[in-house]
Amino acid sequence: MESLMNSAEEQQPSSPPGNSWSKQEEINKNETPKCVGGFVLVHAGAGYHSESKAKEYKHVCKRACQRAVDRLKAGALAAEAVAAALVELELYSAPASNACTHILLDDDSPFTNAGMGSNLNLSGEIECDASIMDGKSLHYGAVGAISGIKNPVLVANRLLSEAQKGKLSAGRIPPCFLVGRGAHDWAVGHGIPPCPSEKMATKFSLSAYKRNKRKMALAEKMDTGHNHAKKRRQSSETAAHYGCGCWAENAFNNPYSTAVSTSGCGEHLIRTMLARECSAALQSEDAHKALLEAMQNKFISSPFLAGEDRVLGGVIVLRCCRCVESPPSQNIQGILVEFLWSHTTESMCVGYMSAQDSKAKTHISRLPPGTVPGQCLAIEGGVCRLSVAE
Amino acid sequence: MESLMNSAEEQQPSSPPGNSWSKQEEINKNETPKCVGGFVLVHAGAGYHSESKAKEYKHVCKRACQRAVDRLKAGALAAEAVAAALVELELYSAPASNACTHILLDDDSPFTNAGMGSNLNLSGEIECDASIMDGKSLHYGAVGAISGIKNPVLVANRLLSEAQKGKLSAGRIPPCFLVGRGAHDWAVGHGIPPCPSEKMATKFSLSAYKRNKRKMALAEKMDTGHNHAKKRRQSSETAAHYGCGCWAENAFNNPYSTAVSTSGCGEHLIRTMLARECSAALQSEDAHKALLEAMQNKFISSPFLAGEDRVLGGVIVLRCCRCVESPPSQNIQGILVEFLWSHTTESMCVGYMSAQDSKAKTHISRLPPGTVPGQCLAIEGGVCRLSVAE
Repeated sequence: MESLMNSAEEQQPSSPPGNSWSKQEEINKNETPKCVGGFVLVHAGAGYHSESKAKEYKHVCKRACQRAVDRLKAGALAAEAVAAALVELELYSAPASNACTHILLDDDSPFTNAGMGSNLNLSGEIECDASIMDGKSLHYGAVGAISGIKNPVLVANRLLSEAQKGKLSAGRIPPCFLVGRGAHDWAVGHGIPPCPSEKMATKFSLSAYKRNKRKMALAEKMDTGHNHAKKRRQSSETAAHYGCGCWAENAFNNPYSTAVSTSGCGEHLIRTMLARECSAALQSEDAHKALLEAMQNKFISSPFLAGEDRVLGGVIVLRCCRCVESPPSQNIQGILVEFLWSHTTESMCVGYMSAQDSKAKTHISRLPPGTVPGQCLAIEGGVCRLSVAE
Repeated sequence: MESLMNSAEEQQPSSPPGNSWSKQEEINKNETPKCVGGFVLVHAGAGYHSESKAKEYKHVCKRACQRAVDRLKAGALAAEAVAAALVELELYSAPASNACTHILLDDDSPFTNAGMGSNLNLSGEIECDASIMDGKSLHYGAVGAISGIKNPVLVANRLLSEAQKGKLSAGRIPPCFLVGRGAHDWAVGHGIPPCPSEKMATKFSLSAYKRNKRKMALAEKMDTGHNHAKKRRQSSETAAHYGCGCWAENAFNNPYSTAVSTSGCGEHLIRTMLARECSAALQSEDAHKALLEAMQNKFISSPFLAGEDRVLGGVIVLRCCRCVESPPSQNIQGILVEFLWSHTTESMCVGYMSAQDSKAKTHISRLPPGTVPGQCLAIEGGVCRLSVAE
């Protein structure tokens, strides 16, 4: 919390609901205008982050932000910077976390984001998802249930960049989403090295897998009503659906450019198309109110999840527009960046950094004590004014 | 065309564009009210249907409609009837067609639909997609890039029905989308028999595969600008994304219940979320105008496909509402069903039938002569009044 509290100004949302809360932060960058554009917001999952591991989660986010900003300063486009950040998160993240995601904007490709998950499936294999979207071209690249590739986001990013090159031979349309073995073979065919599966499992992921298997076995022993078939369920499920894990859309006819990334229970994110819904909601004036209402009406109370007692997920969002105030000089443009996160899970770990910051800020957001995960939400955010060379 | 022309009444759309056309049909069922509810609309792909094979395409659609109506009359719910129809389409459909899809409504579960594709991938293997959505529960089941299962729609339907049973052991959330080997293993674990891959390829599909491979080899030989990596692309791509291949949503707070199924170029359907966009558009009063505008503005001219010279796809839609006129007796409810199809591909084959019809009607819709596929569209449809026991 320390990084946010330094300059936090407590504000109530416009229509404060019983179970939500809000903190707003404003960082004025006009005093020391540098001209490298860009702002990165990442999360290390919406789920549960223990206090004992808080430092590690934050450290991962911090390194990821730094990597993205380093790439931006070196002149990389957003997608490349995002991929660099995600590789960092993939190296350190616990495979049990659902997604580690980045959002970033820069001058060239103002919004992109990416998502990856690396749970072990029921057979004890690592299968990952990753998706990335470019708000400028509106291209999208994703892989699902891919095995034997160390950094799935590099495959998603490669799909994105290959698609932007246009048609393949014989007029074939380049793919935007590949799964399983086909995704693996495509990656290897495009020069991304394979990685033996046994090298992808860490001590942590293996012990989490064993713990979960024990939990399942115990639950199934107790639950005599379950039939045999239920014990044999496989995973091979992907949450990399378009519009569900990430969304990025520049301001074409809309007042704001927006970017959204989600994390949590894959089915809940898919069936509510949470990322796209939040992006659409964020075109209304008050970003905080818009996100709060979207999380309540389009997620917790969504008719698409009417039968669910607990709706579990989290979202990070960025939106930006040009500042109304006149810039300090003719070649400098002021950009107003609003960054928010909201979750119905017990906690969500986030990190953020502008290209003008010397280091990233990190934060583990938690539901207020006594509230019920899946039925209540937390929402927080801040505002940052950037000066960017036109 | 014969089945539509019998009672077709030509109408121009409200804002007739240069390259679209329209036919409206009205079938009044009030004269012989029977009380089995249900209307099925299927397609055998948006793509190219040769005149020489027209009879076969139509025959497949006819049989599929009949199967669905037979199941309905036997008391089956919509999802089961849809699955029966799709099994029929899967038996006969050319693997090179992109999708064979059903939409159906009945009293119990007013809208569902399903999609399947069975192209051979670059390695010569059959990989299929299938998705099904239930407009009443808003549940969704889908499989992607599944091999060795004769009827993928049965897996999608099983995912749907398993999810409706609620949580698995240890509080796990049942999957809604499975891909690749995991999907195959899940299916077999749930009693769906595996089918050796060599039995799934037909003479037709193998010769189409060989023809396409030759075409590719020739194109790559001629195109010296392509690098080696491009020659090694794999398929394993799925178009079973949520909101893209099918959508079904009963009238909760909306005036109409809608169901949509799409076919065509997977990437174009995904990146425009065509099924869901059409469903949302169909809440406005004039269904024909709404679909026409959606196809023009959200598909052909979509900012998400700005770089594409030809946007290829087709859609079938159903929408229904209660008739305003008083029903012939107290226990009978009049239902107004509007059914439409539109495509930018050269042709689209459709079939439709109400539970009160003695046989299905079929039709191959074609773009007007001289128009350019991917840049122009065809749109047609009809209206049917059903009398259904309440």
